[in-house]
Amino acid sequence: MINKSQSEESLPKSRLARRQFLRNGGATAALGLFPAPNAVLAAGGNLPPHVPSWMKEQGAPILNPPYGQPSPFEKNVIRRVRAPSPTQTAASSMTPLQDLHGIITPNGLHFERHHAGVPTIDPTQHRLIVHGLVDRPLIFVMDDIVRFPSESHLYFLECSGNGFWTETTAKSTVQHTHGELSCCEWTGVRLSTVLAEAGVKGDAAWMLAEGADAAAMSRSVPVAKALEDALLVYSQNGERLRPEQGYPLRLFLPGYEGNMSVKWLRRLKLGDQPFETRDETSKYTDLMPNGTARQFTFVMEAKSVITFPSGGHSLREKGFYEISGLAWSGRGRIKRVDVSTDGGTSWKEARLQQPVLSKCLTRFRLSWNWDGSPALLQSRAIDETGYVQPTRQQLVDVRGLNSYYHCNAIQTWLVADDGTVSNVT
Amino acid sequence: MINKSQSEESLPKSRLARRQFLRNGGATAALGLFPAPNAVLAAGGNLPPHVPSWMKEQGAPILNPPYGQPSPFEKNVIRRVRAPSPTQTAASSMTPLQDLHGIITPNGLHFERHHAGVPTIDPTQHRLIVHGLVDRPLIFVMDDIVRFPSESHLYFLECSGNGFWTETTAKSTVQHTHGELSCCEWTGVRLSTVLAEAGVKGDAAWMLAEGADAAAMSRSVPVAKALEDALLVYSQNGERLRPEQGYPLRLFLPGYEGNMSVKWLRRLKLGDQPFETRDETSKYTDLMPNGTARQFTFVMEAKSVITFPSGGHSLREKGFYEISGLAWSGRGRIKRVDVSTDGGTSWKEARLQQPVLSKCLTRFRLSWNWDGSPALLQSRAIDETGYVQPTRQQLVDVRGLNSYYHCNAIQTWLVADDGTVSNVT
Repeated sequence: MINKSQSEESLPKSRLARRQFLRNGGATAALGLFPAPNAVLAAGGNLPPHVPSWMKEQGAPILNPPYGQPSPFEKNVIRRVRAPSPTQTAASSMTPLQDLHGIITPNGLHFERHHAGVPTIDPTQHRLIVHGLVDRPLIFVMDDIVRFPSESHLYFLECSGNGFWTETTAKSTVQHTHGELSCCEWTGVRLSTVLAEAGVKGDAAWMLAEGADAAAMSRSVPVAKALEDALLVYSQNGERLRPEQGYPLRLFLPGYEGNMSVKWLRRLKLGDQPFETRDETSKYTDLMPNGTARQFTFVMEAKSVITFPSGGHSLREKGFYEISGLAWSGRGRIKRVDVSTDGGTSWKEARLQQPVLSKCLTRFRLSWNWDGSPALLQSRAIDETGYVQPTRQQLVDVRGLNSYYHCNAIQTWLVADDGTVSNVT
Repeated sequence: MINKSQSEESLPKSRLARRQFLRNGGATAALGLFPAPNAVLAAGGNLPPHVPSWMKEQGAPILNPPYGQPSPFEKNVIRRVRAPSPTQTAASSMTPLQDLHGIITPNGLHFERHHAGVPTIDPTQHRLIVHGLVDRPLIFVMDDIVRFPSESHLYFLECSGNGFWTETTAKSTVQHTHGELSCCEWTGVRLSTVLAEAGVKGDAAWMLAEGADAAAMSRSVPVAKALEDALLVYSQNGERLRPEQGYPLRLFLPGYEGNMSVKWLRRLKLGDQPFETRDETSKYTDLMPNGTARQFTFVMEAKSVITFPSGGHSLREKGFYEISGLAWSGRGRIKRVDVSTDGGTSWKEARLQQPVLSKCLTRFRLSWNWDGSPALLQSRAIDETGYVQPTRQQLVDVRGLNSYYHCNAIQTWLVADDGTVSNVT
C-alpha cells in the first residue's frame, strides 16, 4: 500500500530526478527485441518519478457527463470535411484514421456522406414499406423491426468515392486520402426474414431502397444480395444508429459501396429490373477511358492503407517503429497483407490481428527498423478470392483517369530523412 | 428514380391510409417463421405510407458536430449511478444493457468505478515507471509506450461488485443488476514486451500496479498473469482511452476483476510477495460465512444475463419475441448458453453470435413464443472449462450472504401476464 505522505517526502524533486536519469538512447537497443529508445533509466529505481498535480486533489465525479466524451487532450481527433462545398448538406466528412488503433471506429468518428443533410426522425413516426412484386405489401413500425430475430456483425463501410484518382497533394493525410472508411458492429434483422413476411414473387430480380432524407436517396439492389446477407440495421457499436448513419433504420449491404446501404430507410420495392434512380445514373457510375460508364459496380474490391506512419506524422529519430494499417475486401476475408518500405521493390508479409472477419477491417502490423534514410512505404492486400490490390499504374491502365469512384490503388507514403511523412501521388 | 412531386400528389393522406390498412394481427402468424404481428398490410401496396415532414426540407449539415453524438430521441440511454453516495468521486456508474445490442459498448456508455474521481492527465506529462525486482528500472513517456508493437483485442471488463447478493428490488433493471459490465476493443502493448525491456528478476512473483489518481489506487498482480496476456492499453474502440477509463494509460488484465486493470497507470513495481495494498485488504476481498475473508479472487467466473426482455421492459402482446442476452467468462470462451422460460425447470440451448471470443462478451439469442401466461426467464452460461453458472441458492450455500463481490448467480426475470417484466431476487 502506498503511503503518500511518506513517498512524497522521500521523492527527489521532479526536475532534479529527471536530470539524474540516464538517457539510454541507442544504448538500450540490444536490451530487448523492441527497444523504446527514449525510455530513461530511473536513478535508484525504487521511487515513482514524481507526484503529479492530479494526484493531489480529488478528480471529477462519475456521470460527468452521463454520456461520456473524449479527453480534452484529444480534441483534434475529429471528422473533417472532404472538400469545401456550397452546402454542407450534400457533402462528406472523413474518419481520422491516422489517430485510430484496432479496427473499430467509435460512432462519433464514423465518416459521413449525405445527399440532402441529416434528417431528424422521430422513431415512433418512422415507417418502412415493402411493396412491389410481393405477395403481401407490408408497412412496419420500428417496434416490428426490432422484434424480429437479430444478428450482429462487424463490417466495414466504405464510400465508393474513398480514394483519389488525381487530386491529392503531398500534404494529404490518410484521413483525406482514405477516411471515407469506418467499421462498426452492426445489429439488425436479416432482410431475408422481413422479405419472407411479404413474400417475394418469383419474377422479382431487383429491389429499390429509398431513404427518408430530403433527397429520397435511392438505389437498386439485386434481390440475390438482398437475400444473401443484407441486414436492416438499427444499432451500431451497441447503441442505436447515430442520426448521420441513418437513425432509426438503415439498409446494410456488407461489402458493397457505402451509398447502397441506404440510410433512414423507408421503402423497399421489389421489381423485375433496375429502377435507374438518379443516384445510380447521374452518379455512382464509373466513367471509362472511352467515354462509356460502368454501372452497378457494387463490390468494394480488396484494398489496404498504412495508417502509421502516414501523411502528417513525423518520426522523431531512427530506430524501431511498428508499421500499422488496415486492409479490407468486399468479397470476404483478407488472406495476406504485404508491406514494402522501398516503394514496392521488396515486400514482407505483415502480421494480421485476429480474428480476421469477412467484409470487416483487418488490422495489419509489421516491425520496422528505420535506418534514417528516405523510405517509400506501401501495403498490398490479398483477399481470400486471390485478388491482389493493384498499383496505381495498373489501375489507371485499365480504368483511365475519368473515374471518380472505386480507386483501390496501393498508397505510397514517403518518409523523408528528417522523419516527416508525406503523401506520394 | 423517385419523382417526389408526383408521388406526393398521388399519396393518400397518412391518417386515411392508416385506416385503410388491415391489421393482420394473429392472422399473419402462419405467413413466416417470425411474424411481426403489428405490421400492417398496405392498401394498394404501391405507395409509400406518407411523406414525412423531414423529407420536405434539407437536413442538418455534416460535422454537426465534428465528434458525433447520439440521436436526441435516445437521450435516456445513459449511464446511471449505482447508488447515491456522499461523494460521486468514490462511486460507480452502470452501462444501460437493457438498451444495447450486440457485444460492443460504445465508449460513452462504458461503466465507471472510481476511488477518487477522474483525474485530468496531460499525456505529455504522464510517466510510467517500472522498478523493483528488475535489472533496469525504466521510466517511459507515452510516446515510448505507443511506439512498442501493439495488439488489439475485444475483451469484456466487469467490476467484481457487479451483481447483488441481497439488495435488489422488483423494479431493478439489468442496468442496475448487471451494468458494471462493458466490452470494447482494447489496443496496447503486451506488458511482457515492456517488462522484457526492464528485465524481470527470477525471484519476482508479484507486481504492484499503481494509478495516478488521488487514491493512488493499487493492486498486486501475479507476475504469471502479467506475462501471460496483460496489456498496457491506450485505446478503446479505436480512439484513445476515455478519461474515466484511465486516459492516457491503463493496465488491462483480461478476465480479471475490473479494479485490477488499474487506470491512469503510473507505476509497476516487481516484488517477491503481494504488496497488501489498501485496495486489496480493506476491499476487494470476499467475506465468507465463517468470518474469514478470501483474498486475491481475481478471475471473473462464467456468468450470463438476459438483457431482453428484462426489468422495466414491457411486452405489448403475446406472440413471438427474441430472448437475447450476454454471456462471458474470465477463463476463456463461452461454450454454451441455456435459456429457461419456466424458472429453471426446462432449458433450451441458445444461439451464440459468432465470433465467440475468449474473455469477451458473447451475445446469445433464443426465439420464444410467449403464450401470455407468467414466465420466469433465466440464462445459464457454460464456459470452455466446463464451469456452469450457479443458481443463487447454490452460490449462497457456499459463499453465504456476507459477501459483496463475485456474485455470478443465475438471474431471473418475471414476465407477468400483463407483459410487464420485473426482477426476481
